[in-house]
Amino acid sequence: MREAYQDQLDQLADALARMCEMDATAIELATKALLDADLTLAEQVIGDDAKIDEARSDCEEHAFALLALQAPVAGDLRNVISAIHAAESLERMGDLALHVAKAARRRHPQPVLPDEVRPYFVEMGRVAVELAKQAEQVIRTRNISLARQLEEADDEMDDLHRHLFTVLMQQSWPHGLPAAVDITLLGRFYERFADHAVSVARRVIFVVTGEPPHPTND
Amino acid sequence: MREAYQDQLDQLADALARMCEMDATAIELATKALLDADLTLAEQVIGDDAKIDEARSDCEEHAFALLALQAPVAGDLRNVISAIHAAESLERMGDLALHVAKAARRRHPQPVLPDEVRPYFVEMGRVAVELAKQAEQVIRTRNISLARQLEEADDEMDDLHRHLFTVLMQQSWPHGLPAAVDITLLGRFYERFADHAVSVARRVIFVVTGEPPHPTND
Repeated sequence: MREAYQDQLDQLADALARMCEMDATAIELATKALLDADLTLAEQVIGDDAKIDEARSDCEEHAFALLALQAPVAGDLRNVISAIHAAESLERMGDLALHVAKAARRRHPQPVLPDEVRPYFVEMGRVAVELAKQAEQVIRTRNISLARQLEEADDEMDDLHRHLFTVLMQQSWPHGLPAAVDITLLGRFYERFADHAVSVARRVIFVVTGEPPHPTND
Repeated sequence: MREAYQDQLDQLADALARMCEMDATAIELATKALLDADLTLAEQVIGDDAKIDEARSDCEEHAFALLALQAPVAGDLRNVISAIHAAESLERMGDLALHVAKAARRRHPQPVLPDEVRPYFVEMGRVAVELAKQAEQVIRTRNISLARQLEEADDEMDDLHRHLFTVLMQQSWPHGLPAAVDITLLGRFYERFADHAVSVARRVIFVVTGEPPHPTND
């Protein structure tokens, strides 16, 4: 019984780790679609989002079955509840990648990003992919020091986001208001993507150490 | 045993309903702070957010205890899982009200909103308060037709949000880019507040009818 239970828990963790991979791919391709005004890539991300939604649904059903059939307590229960939260965050990360892809599609064949802000999105895209991949490793290994490293990558994202706004607020911004509105929302999507990855890592820290995952309020 | 269980479930629903009330108050005061450039109100919302975070933590502990001690199955289990999700959404609604209040504080004593967009925020504030109060009623009564009404209020919010962008995108926008960036983000906060209220209602529909809560992707 105990062994079957551990098996199911491992399968659940594996399903979550695969959601992280899907999110990493989604934000990587969405960023590329945004930078290169690549409609095909944008459509791919938009089409693939349903798979992430489905994976979340599967994770939740899986967690539900575990709770109903095994009635776990203490650490095991915490683990399953955390998986339910993680699945929610990971689905949301997919939605945020979807929003980036939709912005690329909406403006196509025009590029969304003026040259001044491209480097910020190159970097925010890189950090977002890194965060999704780190979250995957944290779920697979339950490595607490790795989980804490996500906070550093998130700080990097916050810095990029702040600098992006500085560029946007320059008196000399020549690209008009619609571009500024797009960039404001896009910056927010990357920042939220990072927040959700951190929240997944914090839940793992909670399961392993019992340290409560303080809300970020971001 | 069964009665004690029902009692605990009722207490959990009551705790969630009180979170809705807190969210309704938070977004009402935050909107007032924004419209009137009222620093005291803004500070109150910012200070009170910790109470919403705490209420969420309590709900989650409560749900955790229920699962560990009662090991519910089927509909009862679905109920508790939904409560965990609802608490997460309700905390997030508090964060979004907090963001509105912080925008009011950041620009104080300057008003954040030019006259052209004030009516949109008056309305978005009204709809947001209504949604939080409707969510409270849905949690307390499990009234499915009321739960479905939240979708209508959410449609109203989406319309307001869309029209707000039309005003913002007018060639003649004379208020500069920083104001536009603020308004873009504020509009998004209200829209997300509404999405979360809808997601709480959908979870209740799911518990009562078994109809899966499709993700909104917004």
